[in-house]
Amino acid sequence: MRILVVNVNTTESITQAIARSAQAVASPGTEIVGLTPYFGADSVEGNFESYLAAIAVMDRVMSYDQPFDAVIQAGYGEHGREGLQELLNVPVVDITDAAASTAMFLGHAYSVVTTLDRTVPLIEDRLKLSGLWDRCASVRASGLAVLELEHEPQRALEAIVHQAELAVTQDKAEVICLGCGGMAGLDEKIRQRTGVPVIDGVTAAVTIAESLVRLGLSTSKVRTYATPRPKTIIGWPARFAR
Amino acid sequence: MRILVVNVNTTESITQAIARSAQAVASPGTEIVGLTPYFGADSVEGNFESYLAAIAVMDRVMSYDQPFDAVIQAGYGEHGREGLQELLNVPVVDITDAAASTAMFLGHAYSVVTTLDRTVPLIEDRLKLSGLWDRCASVRASGLAVLELEHEPQRALEAIVHQAELAVTQDKAEVICLGCGGMAGLDEKIRQRTGVPVIDGVTAAVTIAESLVRLGLSTSKVRTYATPRPKTIIGWPARFAR
Amino acid sequence: MRILVVNVNTTESITQAIARSAQAVASPGTEIVGLTPYFGADSVEGNFESYLAAIAVMDRVMSYDQPFDAVIQAGYGEHGREGLQELLNVPVVDITDAAASTAMFLGHAYSVVTTLDRTVPLIEDRLKLSGLWDRCASVRASGLAVLELEHEPQRALEAIVHQAELAVTQDKAEVICLGCGGMAGLDEKIRQRTGVPVIDGVTAAVTIAESLVRLGLSTSKVRTYATPRPKTIIGWPARFAR
Amino acid sequence: MRILVVNVNTTESITQAIARSAQAVASPGTEIVGLTPYFGADSVEGNFESYLAAIAVMDRVMSYDQPFDAVIQAGYGEHGREGLQELLNVPVVDITDAAASTAMFLGHAYSVVTTLDRTVPLIEDRLKLSGLWDRCASVRASGLAVLELEHEPQRALEAIVHQAELAVTQDKAEVICLGCGGMAGLDEKIRQRTGVPVIDGVTAAVTIAESLVRLGLSTSKVRTYATPRPKTIIGWPARFAR
Amino acid sequence: MRILVVNVNTTESITQAIARSAQAVASPGTEIVGLTPYFGADSVEGNFESYLAAIAVMDRVMSYDQPFDAVIQAGYGEHGREGLQELLNVPVVDITDAAASTAMFLGHAYSVVTTLDRTVPLIEDRLKLSGLWDRCASVRASGLAVLELEHEPQRALEAIVHQAELAVTQDKAEVICLGCGGMAGLDEKIRQRTGVPVIDGVTAAVTIAESLVRLGLSTSKVRTYATPRPKTIIGWPARFAR
Amino acid sequence: MRILVVNVNTTESITQAIARSAQAVASPGTEIVGLTPYFGADSVEGNFESYLAAIAVMDRVMSYDQPFDAVIQAGYGEHGREGLQELLNVPVVDITDAAASTAMFLGHAYSVVTTLDRTVPLIEDRLKLSGLWDRCASVRASGLAVLELEHEPQRALEAIVHQAELAVTQDKAEVICLGCGGMAGLDEKIRQRTGVPVIDGVTAAVTIAESLVRLGLSTSKVRTYATPRPKTIIGWPARFAR
Repeated sequence: MRILVVNVNTTESITQAIARSAQAVASPGTEIVGLTPYFGADSVEGNFESYLAAIAVMDRVMSYDQPFDAVIQAGYGEHGREGLQELLNVPVVDITDAAASTAMFLGHAYSVVTTLDRTVPLIEDRLKLSGLWDRCASVRASGLAVLELEHEPQRALEAIVHQAELAVTQDKAEVICLGCGGMAGLDEKIRQRTGVPVIDGVTAAVTIAESLVRLGLSTSKVRTYATPRPKTIIGWPARFAR
Repeated sequence: MRILVVNVNTTESITQAIARSAQAVASPGTEIVGLTPYFGADSVEGNFESYLAAIAVMDRVMSYDQPFDAVIQAGYGEHGREGLQELLNVPVVDITDAAASTAMFLGHAYSVVTTLDRTVPLIEDRLKLSGLWDRCASVRASGLAVLELEHEPQRALEAIVHQAELAVTQDKAEVICLGCGGMAGLDEKIRQRTGVPVIDGVTAAVTIAESLVRLGLSTSKVRTYATPRPKTIIGWPARFAR
Repeated sequence: MRILVVNVNTTESITQAIARSAQAVASPGTEIVGLTPYFGADSVEGNFESYLAAIAVMDRVMSYDQPFDAVIQAGYGEHGREGLQELLNVPVVDITDAAASTAMFLGHAYSVVTTLDRTVPLIEDRLKLSGLWDRCASVRASGLAVLELEHEPQRALEAIVHQAELAVTQDKAEVICLGCGGMAGLDEKIRQRTGVPVIDGVTAAVTIAESLVRLGLSTSKVRTYATPRPKTIIGWPARFAR
Repeated sequence: MRILVVNVNTTESITQAIARSAQAVASPGTEIVGLTPYFGADSVEGNFESYLAAIAVMDRVMSYDQPFDAVIQAGYGEHGREGLQELLNVPVVDITDAAASTAMFLGHAYSVVTTLDRTVPLIEDRLKLSGLWDRCASVRASGLAVLELEHEPQRALEAIVHQAELAVTQDKAEVICLGCGGMAGLDEKIRQRTGVPVIDGVTAAVTIAESLVRLGLSTSKVRTYATPRPKTIIGWPARFAR
Repeated sequence: MRILVVNVNTTESITQAIARSAQAVASPGTEIVGLTPYFGADSVEGNFESYLAAIAVMDRVMSYDQPFDAVIQAGYGEHGREGLQELLNVPVVDITDAAASTAMFLGHAYSVVTTLDRTVPLIEDRLKLSGLWDRCASVRASGLAVLELEHEPQRALEAIVHQAELAVTQDKAEVICLGCGGMAGLDEKIRQRTGVPVIDGVTAAVTIAESLVRLGLSTSKVRTYATPRPKTIIGWPARFAR
Repeated sequence: MRILVVNVNTTESITQAIARSAQAVASPGTEIVGLTPYFGADSVEGNFESYLAAIAVMDRVMSYDQPFDAVIQAGYGEHGREGLQELLNVPVVDITDAAASTAMFLGHAYSVVTTLDRTVPLIEDRLKLSGLWDRCASVRASGLAVLELEHEPQRALEAIVHQAELAVTQDKAEVICLGCGGMAGLDEKIRQRTGVPVIDGVTAAVTIAESLVRLGLSTSKVRTYATPRPKTIIGWPARFAR
């Protein structure tokens, strides 16, 4: 089975970190292919960048020329998943949904700890649209930007742990979701510090994608995610930036 | 005052119809500028096309080289408004929100009549995200595609009136919102047939945009719609398809 | 176009302040007529007084003997708007709804800052009934009574700014609505202090009322706001207190 | 114990029917006093009439010159209960709330069958404000006006039973609330026909009012229903129409 | 009239306290019978114990061999009420619902003060399922276990009063519900200290049960609470532990 | 890895069918152990039976004397999962949650098709408590009892397909969840007939349980599902019926 794990930003090192983390939990026989979009921001932290990423992710996946069995969109709270679901016949799993969905099997309420405060409403909105909001205790921001997670891992860890602790003690979260693809790998450390299960959306998404494939299930094509109707489209297929 | 009215698709005749309809209700002294995106689908009827339109609309607005006072995104239930709000310092009004917001001043519940069934969930989701869902009685599809509205106006009118009547009698709507930018101009005819107020989002959006400008109000920049942080972005500014 | 702006209390100086503020944003050609009810409390701060105001406002509007194009009910969180909508064929705009509806075009969430804590639940309930609650971050009380706003403007300003700041920093509001007709005129000062858009319901209502008239839209008469059926009514038309 | 049961309209025969029905379930030692407002409509079927009734009921109760232990507002879905709660120190029970609250002890979902379709949104809104909406399966209108219940009891019975049956079979209601003070006495007949518990709000309200008195409980005065602050009020105490 | 008041735990002294408290508010002619389950935990503070109690309460009621008119399940936030409703033809009143339902007649919002933090989610969930959650301001834990209420009444009183005060001042509760059957008798003391109405679910349930019986109302048998279908059941009727 | 799949009823043939179906999708190296409770109903179709099953399932799992890695509770809409989560340190997956959670990755809305109408409210309530209700289009009953699924498979298939079709065409479901453990094996047939993905909760639960184990995740023990406190419990450990 081959699963594409698509980064939402153009920072190659994040793609590699995500792919490593995905491969680490993949079943024997599952090949993880990390993809970096051909265009877009080096880190995605807001609506404009997220909308651009939505198209860049679709572009990257559609220009991948080998067969694959599922796609993971590895951005937290980003736009675009529904477009991929229309374009593809294989399952599409967003890490935001994967983490929340998994969290709900482990505790009565969960919180998300993410990067900048400005991304909190995006995550809240995506969880609402996905129908996974009801048991969300809070979405908290560590105040650190995506790329700071890469460059200052220790400071990032402290900031994330601090918010995770507040989520547990004040917001009554019983599970923590790491709210950024770039946080892959921090889960075990934070679990030790907070005492509650910590979920990395990327690894959760890998097991969900594998499960859907194994069960022979894929996106329903009867309505919302039906294949696009034939259209005259200017600028697509795109390879926009090449 | 100059207001940009941006079509979400690349069909120039629709842009013109929308702009005419906008100009017709504009105050003396308001100049309406209709814009057609440089890329994207000739009609937008689903998530993939809508996400592409989101970027195409932002691209078109950002490459407009004259000053302007407000922007109207003239697509019903489409993605992208939040991105424009980040990129601009002038008010941005989506016609989906404009119609619903206006409807709520006129009746206890409103319905939207749109084109294809597959776009119903998109509209519902946008209304939910905008906080305008509570008084929505239903979103109904006429079953006609966007371009059929142009090519078969009489048949379109009948199909839309039929759904509007069901919305009033069965769903208890007291106001009807025309759920497609391409329906501009049908409101008066449908009002005569159904006996309830009928709202065209484009004209509603013009009065709202003018009002915001007149009141000196614009998008809040403290959190969700803050100006994007400086980033390395590949492929933007885009002029993707040029 | 003539718009009646009806105060909900019997304090004439408040009527005048509201009318001035309304006239200041009105379009050329719009005449603002400020009306003071013939009976009721000198300030409205609770359910009993608000119910009395509801009838007093209807009484005052119905006894106005000139033609008019729209009515603005200038009380925040008060009862009665639905009654006016039944009795009239012109649009009725409540400033509570006008402010909230306008706020939602400017930010992801808004807060209301009002006078006394006891009126908070009334405002919350009116916003819920109007379907405008979803994006409300909080309703906060400055602790100052309506008439204190008149008599101690500087102290009122400080108290309102303080709550507005808490709304932004703690409740994550991105827009502030001034929750009292008597706050008309404070918006600019508070905007300077808080950095977020501040909405005065009276001025917002003027632009909305003008817009509805311009679009040829008025209250739907098919169900909730249908004209009252012929009845034997004791004590109405009332001129209760004259 | 003396309980005032206040009709919301000025039709004396309805007051008497309500009072008889209340007295029939009252405990030994409970005196029921039926009161008719001094002003207002002969039947209340909409917002204007309901707002007028709100004040008329408060006026009538405040001008009652004997001691009493509780007040029942005997109109379904009417405005005003909150005003009475501010003015009085004894418990106030609205029959809308009483019926819904009682229904929820008997079945998983309940429906209300009322008179005219135009009153359905009023009832829905009152149930929402009272926090009793969650388990409401539907509010259905028999299409008969309040006074027709008096003049054509057999036809009214059939129309109400028909809607009750639809509520049970289609809306999955397990309990029926009679949505009009004027329906007092029909409950047993409808129960026989539909096979589900049928609740008359007046009788339910009597037992609730008695219970509150017996438990020594009354309206909380700390916030929403605090006694009105001292004010200059024109036209009150009113005796408006006398 | 005979009302069974069933403790959810096996501590006989709690049964007696509950029964005394119930008898104290019962009408003349109402006989209160306190029942202790034959099996289960000496105090119920979590899901496992609560599920065991659900069956133990059903077992105890079904093995009671005298006629009775209503049953009160005297545990706060416990499972099982729906099972009793299926098995019996007389009304079943849970004290969680009784307290919340009563509170809603007295204030705009209520809070529950319970024992341990771990039981808060159970209570919240039961209120949600019962449709009584909308006006709940908060559920707060005193941090004291059920049996500590018995053994350290003064310390318990202080802890409960403290949380009640926070509920009023911070969460804006206007009424307090005592969230534990074992708190019976504390209501008056706490009312004096907090100034808001305090509701003991057991006494509220007695008046509701009496009211339902008096009105001739009982559980609807058409759907959710229909009598169980004939089945082969191993181990029931149980007398599990005897 | 060993996963216990616990039937909620005492019909051994259903346990075997469930276990077969579970084993069929299990990963190599996963051992499925089907368990039948020692007591309870031969089919569970209502609250009383479901509460009894809750305890019977806990009893059966606790008396299993070999190590295991996860537990699947194989009843649709049943009580008890929270109790198991308290008692165990390994993940617990309910098939109701597993099916709904999986469905949400495949379509915008899902419906459940279950057995008898009386169980519909139980399923709805469980989905609400699990936070998985938002995207549920409907829960529909085929009208066939659990055991009829076994004895009349063809008639059951037709009835279930019919409801599934109505769910898709009328309720706008894009995915169907089979709402009964006893429906295991029907999914492929129904998928062919309806054209939408069909989810069997048992197989979905197997992949989720395996995923949780693989990710090293288990139930959070900080609050709702903390291990029960030491108690004096009569009749437990039970082996009630042996």
